[in-house]
Amino acid sequence: MDINRLQQQMGFLLEIDKLKNILRQTYITNGSRQENDAEHSWHLAMMALTLEEYANEKNINLLHVIKMLLIHDLVEIDAGDTFAYDEKGHEDKQEREEEAANRIFSILPDDQAEGLYSLWREFEDRETPEARFAAALDRLHPMLLNHQAKGLTWKKFDIRKEQVLSRNKTIAEGSEDLWEYAQAVIEDAVENGYLR
Amino acid sequence: MDINRLQQQMGFLLEIDKLKNILRQTYITNGSRQENDAEHSWHLAMMALTLEEYANEKNINLLHVIKMLLIHDLVEIDAGDTFAYDEKGHEDKQEREEEAANRIFSILPDDQAEGLYSLWREFEDRETPEARFAAALDRLHPMLLNHQAKGLTWKKFDIRKEQVLSRNKTIAEGSEDLWEYAQAVIEDAVENGYLR
Repeated sequence: MDINRLQQQMGFLLEIDKLKNILRQTYITNGSRQENDAEHSWHLAMMALTLEEYANEKNINLLHVIKMLLIHDLVEIDAGDTFAYDEKGHEDKQEREEEAANRIFSILPDDQAEGLYSLWREFEDRETPEARFAAALDRLHPMLLNHQAKGLTWKKFDIRKEQVLSRNKTIAEGSEDLWEYAQAVIEDAVENGYLR
Repeated sequence: MDINRLQQQMGFLLEIDKLKNILRQTYITNGSRQENDAEHSWHLAMMALTLEEYANEKNINLLHVIKMLLIHDLVEIDAGDTFAYDEKGHEDKQEREEEAANRIFSILPDDQAEGLYSLWREFEDRETPEARFAAALDRLHPMLLNHQAKGLTWKKFDIRKEQVLSRNKTIAEGSEDLWEYAQAVIEDAVENGYLR
């Protein structure tokens, strides 16, 4: 056993505990509090495991999808969560997150640092079937929670139906079926007064 | 698309949001609050991804390990978290968790319900290389966090070194290397006064 290598790995695993303190704008389904990034990442991995059959491209690599989902928000330990509808926040999001990726993944031994950095870039670039499906789940997840919480976040930021449709239509690139389902959720939210 | 099937799957995914409300006795590394089961499950999946090379048996199926870790605590939605050193709580733990597994996994379509139930049983039985490695990580994780939080939980319940060694020695069944590391963590905790 190479103890230096193991200590780097343990250093990384303790560092990423901070993801549990990064709050999102989404509330957990009972509306009692905001969700954090670690819980969100777990829930997305569970969605991948349960909804794999709806990916547009068949025979996707599920392990690859789950790995991307587990690590996709680690950059927010440094860069913070940028709210989906925060246009100003998105201006320098890429730069902030690139710096964060470099710092956080570099805590690992080089081979693993490179592996996780590539996975993160793949998720961001949405150019592989796995990345498109992972990104679709990442978009769908807050809509499902927000619908359950009777539109708490949509109301808080006065979000309109057109914004939700425009922001989330890329779900179709990963899963036509889930985009169809998402649109029904949006319609239901409007009918129930959760979304304007 | 079979909409009934998808609705069962979505019902399951919304039900398991409750895992975010199940608190463990372990504190997050900064000691500010207790960890919940959803965060714990995410952190374990990250440990599997990072520490795979230390499994006793080579060529384990990483996807299988990660799936087990993602779902292993879902039964606690109904059965609650049983603290590692709570002897009374362990008397009826098995029965309570079996009932919970039946209810929660049955929300899914039958094929998926059976699949997740089998995975959960495999984790509990610790008879496959994947289950032994997953269980080793599940034991190691609270020790790492507790050490970082300067022994908060050990002190709160007046846990002694012998109890920690006895409870966690099964880590060696999944990973001799990680058990060696765990023992060093325990020694360090004693030296620093985190553990009696």
